[in-house]
Amino acid sequence: MTHTADITRPPRHLVDGLLKIGAATASATLAHMGIRCAFMTGPVAWTRGRAVAGPALTLHCLPKREDLYGEGEYKDPEKQLHRHVLYHVQEGDIVVVDARGDMRSGIFGEMMMTYFKGRRGGGVVIDGCVRDWPNLRDLGVPLWVRGVTPNFHTQTDIMPVAVNVPIACGGVTVIPGDIIVADDDGAVCVPVALAAACIEKAHRDHGWEDFSREMLEQGGDLRRYYPLSDAARPEYEAWCAQRGRKP
Amino acid sequence: MTHTADITRPPRHLVDGLLKIGAATASATLAHMGIRCAFMTGPVAWTRGRAVAGPALTLHCLPKREDLYGEGEYKDPEKQLHRHVLYHVQEGDIVVVDARGDMRSGIFGEMMMTYFKGRRGGGVVIDGCVRDWPNLRDLGVPLWVRGVTPNFHTQTDIMPVAVNVPIACGGVTVIPGDIIVADDDGAVCVPVALAAACIEKAHRDHGWEDFSREMLEQGGDLRRYYPLSDAARPEYEAWCAQRGRKP
Amino acid sequence: MTHTADITRPPRHLVDGLLKIGAATASATLAHMGIRCAFMTGPVAWTRGRAVAGPALTLHCLPKREDLYGEGEYKDPEKQLHRHVLYHVQEGDIVVVDARGDMRSGIFGEMMMTYFKGRRGGGVVIDGCVRDWPNLRDLGVPLWVRGVTPNFHTQTDIMPVAVNVPIACGGVTVIPGDIIVADDDGAVCVPVALAAACIEKAHRDHGWEDFSREMLEQGGDLRRYYPLSDAARPEYEAWCAQRGRKP
Amino acid sequence: MTHTADITRPPRHLVDGLLKIGAATASATLAHMGIRCAFMTGPVAWTRGRAVAGPALTLHCLPKREDLYGEGEYKDPEKQLHRHVLYHVQEGDIVVVDARGDMRSGIFGEMMMTYFKGRRGGGVVIDGCVRDWPNLRDLGVPLWVRGVTPNFHTQTDIMPVAVNVPIACGGVTVIPGDIIVADDDGAVCVPVALAAACIEKAHRDHGWEDFSREMLEQGGDLRRYYPLSDAARPEYEAWCAQRGRKP
Amino acid sequence: MTHTADITRPPRHLVDGLLKIGAATASATLAHMGIRCAFMTGPVAWTRGRAVAGPALTLHCLPKREDLYGEGEYKDPEKQLHRHVLYHVQEGDIVVVDARGDMRSGIFGEMMMTYFKGRRGGGVVIDGCVRDWPNLRDLGVPLWVRGVTPNFHTQTDIMPVAVNVPIACGGVTVIPGDIIVADDDGAVCVPVALAAACIEKAHRDHGWEDFSREMLEQGGDLRRYYPLSDAARPEYEAWCAQRGRKP
Amino acid sequence: MTHTADITRPPRHLVDGLLKIGAATASATLAHMGIRCAFMTGPVAWTRGRAVAGPALTLHCLPKREDLYGEGEYKDPEKQLHRHVLYHVQEGDIVVVDARGDMRSGIFGEMMMTYFKGRRGGGVVIDGCVRDWPNLRDLGVPLWVRGVTPNFHTQTDIMPVAVNVPIACGGVTVIPGDIIVADDDGAVCVPVALAAACIEKAHRDHGWEDFSREMLEQGGDLRRYYPLSDAARPEYEAWCAQRGRKP
Repeated sequence: MTHTADITRPPRHLVDGLLKIGAATASATLAHMGIRCAFMTGPVAWTRGRAVAGPALTLHCLPKREDLYGEGEYKDPEKQLHRHVLYHVQEGDIVVVDARGDMRSGIFGEMMMTYFKGRRGGGVVIDGCVRDWPNLRDLGVPLWVRGVTPNFHTQTDIMPVAVNVPIACGGVTVIPGDIIVADDDGAVCVPVALAAACIEKAHRDHGWEDFSREMLEQGGDLRRYYPLSDAARPEYEAWCAQRGRKP
Repeated sequence: MTHTADITRPPRHLVDGLLKIGAATASATLAHMGIRCAFMTGPVAWTRGRAVAGPALTLHCLPKREDLYGEGEYKDPEKQLHRHVLYHVQEGDIVVVDARGDMRSGIFGEMMMTYFKGRRGGGVVIDGCVRDWPNLRDLGVPLWVRGVTPNFHTQTDIMPVAVNVPIACGGVTVIPGDIIVADDDGAVCVPVALAAACIEKAHRDHGWEDFSREMLEQGGDLRRYYPLSDAARPEYEAWCAQRGRKP
Repeated sequence: MTHTADITRPPRHLVDGLLKIGAATASATLAHMGIRCAFMTGPVAWTRGRAVAGPALTLHCLPKREDLYGEGEYKDPEKQLHRHVLYHVQEGDIVVVDARGDMRSGIFGEMMMTYFKGRRGGGVVIDGCVRDWPNLRDLGVPLWVRGVTPNFHTQTDIMPVAVNVPIACGGVTVIPGDIIVADDDGAVCVPVALAAACIEKAHRDHGWEDFSREMLEQGGDLRRYYPLSDAARPEYEAWCAQRGRKP
Repeated sequence: MTHTADITRPPRHLVDGLLKIGAATASATLAHMGIRCAFMTGPVAWTRGRAVAGPALTLHCLPKREDLYGEGEYKDPEKQLHRHVLYHVQEGDIVVVDARGDMRSGIFGEMMMTYFKGRRGGGVVIDGCVRDWPNLRDLGVPLWVRGVTPNFHTQTDIMPVAVNVPIACGGVTVIPGDIIVADDDGAVCVPVALAAACIEKAHRDHGWEDFSREMLEQGGDLRRYYPLSDAARPEYEAWCAQRGRKP
Repeated sequence: MTHTADITRPPRHLVDGLLKIGAATASATLAHMGIRCAFMTGPVAWTRGRAVAGPALTLHCLPKREDLYGEGEYKDPEKQLHRHVLYHVQEGDIVVVDARGDMRSGIFGEMMMTYFKGRRGGGVVIDGCVRDWPNLRDLGVPLWVRGVTPNFHTQTDIMPVAVNVPIACGGVTVIPGDIIVADDDGAVCVPVALAAACIEKAHRDHGWEDFSREMLEQGGDLRRYYPLSDAARPEYEAWCAQRGRKP
Repeated sequence: MTHTADITRPPRHLVDGLLKIGAATASATLAHMGIRCAFMTGPVAWTRGRAVAGPALTLHCLPKREDLYGEGEYKDPEKQLHRHVLYHVQEGDIVVVDARGDMRSGIFGEMMMTYFKGRRGGGVVIDGCVRDWPNLRDLGVPLWVRGVTPNFHTQTDIMPVAVNVPIACGGVTVIPGDIIVADDDGAVCVPVALAAACIEKAHRDHGWEDFSREMLEQGGDLRRYYPLSDAARPEYEAWCAQRGRKP
């Protein structure tokens, strides 16, 4: 029987903290911490307006080789590893798939995503496609993909080969258990060991943004308010005091 | 005077049958019948939510050669073959264009598509672009294209050279008269000689999907219900009997 | 202190005239005037339904070189030239950025675009991305871009190097002060010296289109009405007379 | 039985005249005559140092469709159209193949090229690959290709569908019977109707090049000698007189 | 201490048998056995004229992540897995590297390849580059690569992460211990379980090629001799008898 | 009259020092100094076996716009900026051209390169092509290009717009006067301000390589000799002493 490893899930407060700062701030903050690009280029927000964070379950695909994976879609399904990554799904988990950028393989379809939703998965990021979009749309599972296709997962050029191993997705290495933050800007992989520092630094660096936005909307000078200049800091501190906020 | 061939249209019940099963099931079923990829990669559903099926009229483009096609847009229009493919349009026909993936040539614009709609064409699939999208949008012609452009069809690098000949569109060979099935998953070309067998096989393979979806929604086990296991088959047959359906 | 040049803005009636004819007619008319492709391939209408015209302010990026631009996002911001192009913005100006097609650099984010809106800029065209889309969406600045990203402008591979110099954007050369026309078909660069002739020629060539559209909607013959045949010209002139229009 | 059309071959003096001026001058001269790019981008000189000119026999490939071309390499070979294009070869003919830029299909191998050589073919231009290069190298057939591969012609994604029809090769339209000029700069397609004018204009425009080269080698001023300035023309005419050449 | 697995090497006669049939015949024969494309697209014969066969040692790279692999080239070299794959090299082994098609990372340089040669390795196949080519050229190690670069292996975008695991190289899945056959046509991966059958079938299918080549060279008819027709078989058998060969 | 700026040339010993360390060591050393990738990806060594170093003269191209550059090749040649960059050439200078990766424009041909050679230029690096290769080959000018073409520089899509301004070439920013180091590994841009430090660091880091190579050739352990381990350092120092070298 096929057995695949589960992951170690990060503490809830790290996931919540990253969801709150969002993909843009997470990516920028990691850049200032030495991770040049944590953003996965390729998968885009297919279900506009959704924002999620959660630990990564991973699925690795390789080019199809007919002596290893020649059978049809439904023959001995327990050997099909794209099913196994779903068996591990717990509430809020994000499934991340290295589908090699393939535009002719739909990794998951309506049935699989119905099951995923039933297990309360958080979202799916694929460097590739899903299928059954006419039906998937109504299901409401948050998706970051390159596109959609009518083809099924092993119909053309790829096959799943491993679950919960390190993968590349959209040019970024994802280690199982890393925290994915995804919204309309795209999907970012936060290395789990850097999550706490990232949240803390993000708050320190961007605490003044609400104040600055308000000033710019009122016609304030970009040089003074973005980034917050030393000259404007007392003004900001007064603004905070007024609102009972910590600068 | 320019003369181009018409096509032989398939019987209506084949077109209707394929429309009902949709692009995803058509593509998957053809794969199990030996046609590895009937899906055209490149053109995407530009008018979301539309689903069509119909026989293919085809238009072939080649790289522009100024000694063959140097004239302006409106000079001797009867020589412009993109017009001729429209002259053949009957109700429900799908025009399929090999525009070579070109992103700087808009094969049809508002005027042409107004004429196409007046002839009750079914839809248009282009491995390339249309133009006049600000006006086309309201017209409501179902479109599968790579994108839009303000340029007209021979403005930059391509020119139409033949109507109703075999073409390549999105990596798939389309023979005039083949049946195109297109929805939000994309556009699929069903070889007309395989259409009947494809419909029949699709029904046989996927009849249990409504039942399985219901079970998965109620928290059913993926292993038991998708694909339908032998263990669950009696359950499915009972479900059918209750509804007066044929398993 | 960093100093960058301003542009010479074209007369208002040229901008208004081009806005009225739209991107498709502007591009086609320029083609008939000898400019083969004035359309920028790559940036697409990200804020559907918007149409703008205005003079181009330009920003040029080059590949990042760490000895020239290694510092963080907020260190010595006055040296960051993407800010300076915004300092020049007057009502209706279009900022055009050669971001080298990079998908991992968000040239502007919410704060910059809030400032741009405050200065009543007309729109932004980038051969690349913006960031902060979850917030930008509500701001309503018209955008033609390749996509969105959570990364900031110099996070990965590029850096701004010059303001209001000739640039390439989407395969088209843009001279500062040229007029950009952008709508759902995409963005077109009209060389300012050709603007008046382009408007005049567009009216002459397409004056009959309203008439022809009406005829095609009523089932008229494409050969007769598009383009307007000599045979149908009297009919058109009568149609004009009836409406008090100049043919 | 499969029947394919032969071509009309151009007069020998046109072929010889073009061979003499070479690919660079042919392409540049055609550009000045209105054919912007007669050069096929993609195929490169694989057998360095060879130069050929001759009429084009053409072979058109489309994406493979298993219901049309599923059989093995050697089953019913008379249906394989890549053989038929070779049946037409006469001395000096150039076979041009639209292999769709495919890097995984070797259109011809050692056996086919041995036969081609036996018929004294002039050369082969493929927007794709050949196979059996370890053996082909010694055979000495002049080749312009994208590369080599061990795969045979229908092994992966394409199939031949027509012989001696208009094709696209490397972004250029080739009409059967057009004259191909190919050397280490690449392969150029000269429309047969323009061949005589192209040769005549090339001689007129470049007759002074031998003189100018000599001057530049001796340290002459680029401004004076390239292109030949009016000031230097008497000098050139004297140089011609000395050699009994017609200026 | 880093430990990586060794591979199981196939029997010598399989390796020798495949070397003798070469890449083109191996790839074609596998295609007829159901493996559509065993050819790695991307790496090309960089050291022309070399032909090798041997078991695959594999090296897997992922996109660089600075928190996992930020150190310099020479810091703690024992953690650098591209060294470890070389530690396993035995006479005739082929090192196959999934370098993700990266053109800016030179996986091995002169020093590493000197060591590889010292261990009598058979050759190296990389979906990417080597560095130090000015020195490597004289070393004479057979190489199939995409190109060369002055950069070292982790200088830009990738890092090695695993040794002797299944990888993708040039679009083909390679299992450690599979047999690589590489010559001027490129590199082919023969699944080890299919090697014996591939050799046997290749001999059966192509035994007549020497005879046919001789006939074609003497002006024989392609239809009669390639592939060998039934009509010509007695002739072939006589040819064999004369030479004491088994048909 | 067209006037373009000259450059400031670096001291000769910097150029000589960089030539001696070569492209691979220059690129690696700069990486350890913070310049992640100084290597230009795209142009490759077209004249194998040549190695050069010299200050960069630069030429910038933009997409062609017919209203700015519609004239023929030889009309008013003094306005053609690709000529002007050559007017600045002094002995050993390297001309670097941002030709936008275009494969259909040959920036320089035989005549221009004859003039360049006459001025004793060091070499040419183009992110694009040259033309007249059949003649250029014998001229012997060292070239790093993407390929060759028969087309001339403004025949298709680009035009030169500026001389000796900062450019991007192969993904690297080149400032006029920076030192280019190019050999069979490719071309590297060394920022002039870092040149002295780069040479000095290269010697410090790689002084032991000659010793290590000798050891590896004699079957030495990779772990001990590459990089040089502390254990082997006394051995290296003895080796140096014997040869009168400074360790």
